[in-house]
Amino acid sequence: MSKPLSIAVAGLGTVGAGVLKLLEANAGLIAARAGRPIVVGAVSARDRTRDRGIRLETLRWYDDPVALAADPGTDVVVELIGGSEGPARALVEAAIAAGKPVVTANKALLAVHGAALAEQAEARRVALAFEAAVAGGIPAIKGLREGLAANRLSRVAGILNGTCNYILTVMREQGREFAEVLAEAQKLGYAEADPAFDIDGIDAAHKLAILAALAFGRPVDFGAVHVEGIRNVTALDIALAGELGYRIKLLGIAARTPGGISTRVHPCMVPVAAPIARVDGVFNAVVAEGDFVGRVMLEGRGAGAGPTASAVVADLIDLARGRHTPVWGAANGALESVPAEPMERHRGAYYLRLMVLDRPGVIADVTGILRDQAISLESMLQRGRAPGEAVPVVLTTHECEEAQMRAAITRIAALETVLETPALIRIEPL
Amino acid sequence: MSKPLSIAVAGLGTVGAGVLKLLEANAGLIAARAGRPIVVGAVSARDRTRDRGIRLETLRWYDDPVALAADPGTDVVVELIGGSEGPARALVEAAIAAGKPVVTANKALLAVHGAALAEQAEARRVALAFEAAVAGGIPAIKGLREGLAANRLSRVAGILNGTCNYILTVMREQGREFAEVLAEAQKLGYAEADPAFDIDGIDAAHKLAILAALAFGRPVDFGAVHVEGIRNVTALDIALAGELGYRIKLLGIAARTPGGISTRVHPCMVPVAAPIARVDGVFNAVVAEGDFVGRVMLEGRGAGAGPTASAVVADLIDLARGRHTPVWGAANGALESVPAEPMERHRGAYYLRLMVLDRPGVIADVTGILRDQAISLESMLQRGRAPGEAVPVVLTTHECEEAQMRAAITRIAALETVLETPALIRIEPL
Repeated sequence: MSKPLSIAVAGLGTVGAGVLKLLEANAGLIAARAGRPIVVGAVSARDRTRDRGIRLETLRWYDDPVALAADPGTDVVVELIGGSEGPARALVEAAIAAGKPVVTANKALLAVHGAALAEQAEARRVALAFEAAVAGGIPAIKGLREGLAANRLSRVAGILNGTCNYILTVMREQGREFAEVLAEAQKLGYAEADPAFDIDGIDAAHKLAILAALAFGRPVDFGAVHVEGIRNVTALDIALAGELGYRIKLLGIAARTPGGISTRVHPCMVPVAAPIARVDGVFNAVVAEGDFVGRVMLEGRGAGAGPTASAVVADLIDLARGRHTPVWGAANGALESVPAEPMERHRGAYYLRLMVLDRPGVIADVTGILRDQAISLESMLQRGRAPGEAVPVVLTTHECEEAQMRAAITRIAALETVLETPALIRIEPL
Repeated sequence: MSKPLSIAVAGLGTVGAGVLKLLEANAGLIAARAGRPIVVGAVSARDRTRDRGIRLETLRWYDDPVALAADPGTDVVVELIGGSEGPARALVEAAIAAGKPVVTANKALLAVHGAALAEQAEARRVALAFEAAVAGGIPAIKGLREGLAANRLSRVAGILNGTCNYILTVMREQGREFAEVLAEAQKLGYAEADPAFDIDGIDAAHKLAILAALAFGRPVDFGAVHVEGIRNVTALDIALAGELGYRIKLLGIAARTPGGISTRVHPCMVPVAAPIARVDGVFNAVVAEGDFVGRVMLEGRGAGAGPTASAVVADLIDLARGRHTPVWGAANGALESVPAEPMERHRGAYYLRLMVLDRPGVIADVTGILRDQAISLESMLQRGRAPGEAVPVVLTTHECEEAQMRAAITRIAALETVLETPALIRIEPL
């Protein structure tokens, strides 16, 4: 057996500790599959004394993570600090500059600086691997970039944030409101103390930007992603979705359109019969549509110490075996420059739920505005009767353009008889 | 860009023609992802004149496929002839002996001769790739062997034969009997004229043997697979399964058990809520359970020209990039010798459906036999009443051993009041 692969791990939080535990627990089979042992030589973390349930005494300790890049005994640097800036970015850049392969779980870094990092990695002929950055333990990066590499993809979509999927699942199963379920998820450790990154869709958008770059062979473009989170999803809309034959999921969707590549993260209504509609709780899923392979769906745990460590170590095994793939699936010079389609140009069907005063003429006002915007109604449903009081009215439309819908919503929201901000959820025919 | 990878293709049936079409249709993106063009230099097939919708004039033609191994312009041999013996086996062995990497879609060859071929490939340091051999376009081999390589797997299960899944799906949706749906599937091209290979479970067993070897890191052992097909599944049992909250699927299941590795292909009752229960029609799925990653499911099209070509070309892109993995995921010397658990030792719950004469004492006879074999009943249901005539009786059991159940069935079948061979379907808590 060849010389061990010696790694340095920066960041010993849940994931970092998980990687060390996995490497120890499955050392024998990992060595067999990697062709040589994978051993941790050096680590860096904020607090040396904290008990993480792993032995650190025999490892070289660095207070400054960036110094790991220069550790002479290290073959591969594993960055598990997180964040698109600061020490994570500095360490990855330093490791590449030092000619050391990098494995990272850092979606923010790849989404924001991935284009520049890929160029640095290519210039230095260094691997930059990030299976753990998207969809946790699901081999989604490998699946898309290698497994489906023969295909021209038309679309990649996914449930990319387990916190949001957990909250939406519990809201539906228990008929409860967002704020209450979020608070419970925080207690259970399924949501962060500051949950904005997850529930406002940023985390999913980072992952979608990465998937879109891989799927369409173009430089990663986080700025182009349209992002909406799940704060405004109500128990009422989830119940009404069910009546209409849909589930509400926070999806990231990247698609090739006549105008270029559209990338968007927002709550969607998906038909109950669609496989992705049944991916519940903390599970993630990625669906890809290829011209030869058709539809492929990959499903599994998208977060947590075990699944994320599984992905990190899969990357390490690839490196130990000498398996290497360009960051975005092709050399930087071979990436295509495809324009991003702005959200205003999105075409699709819409669910619109209004709280209106129950009095004659309201529906005529609303449908008149939709007609003025050339939006064609598919269905209209007024729930219950309460003359002079607020009642929900649900409308679904045929396909129209987002810009038309936004113009219509602005006018509808301004109607005196419309009592709350209209709820708008896009319907996705997955 | 580097020198093109020149390939020779043996077998120009549906899949072979599909590979040539794919390589032409997506030549640009394949070259970008492979780092160099992949071009077909030579081909071999039975009939040179048949119109396959592809141009062959510029290619070197060989009447004898085995001669492709010696073609001086060929870098990689692609074997798409099929069958565990004959020219397919001869070509693969000749190519390996000549030091040429092989890509094949041949599950029978890998299942039956995979251990010897892996040794030959390792001795010659030649790649033998077979993503297309299991689950068509789903990157299942790559997913297991590389994507989940950090995990100790406890179980791999799958819907591995699209023909069987299509027939079972139509039987359930339309309440029709096996023979009728099979005949229709043959007309539609979803089943072969000689369907035995598919419907008797052999094809699924070949694929399961391959998955089991990868999952558990042991030499492939097709002979150890317990195989039952779907010929005896009735519309009645499918309907009764639905009432009990199950779907009937032909599954291949490989699991680590106290006695070793159990591998079996047979119709199963799976809970409707299990993700695999919803994989319908010609779709395949593979579910793996890993110690760190948890449950991962991969789903997609398991057969057909496009999906299979997608997998073949993915292997070619790997080879063009120099990505290499040992046939069974580890060097032959690192494979473990784990005993196969015989089917008699299988433990699980059972569904048993009898056609009995509706007269007093029958149920007491049947349940008495189960008690004698120490089999504990979970439920009993007699459908309808027809004194003196045949009525179905359904029993479900708690977990017991297969040997006990077989002994009980033999005695039950011998009862004068039991009118047909009892239907037995294993219940799988997926």
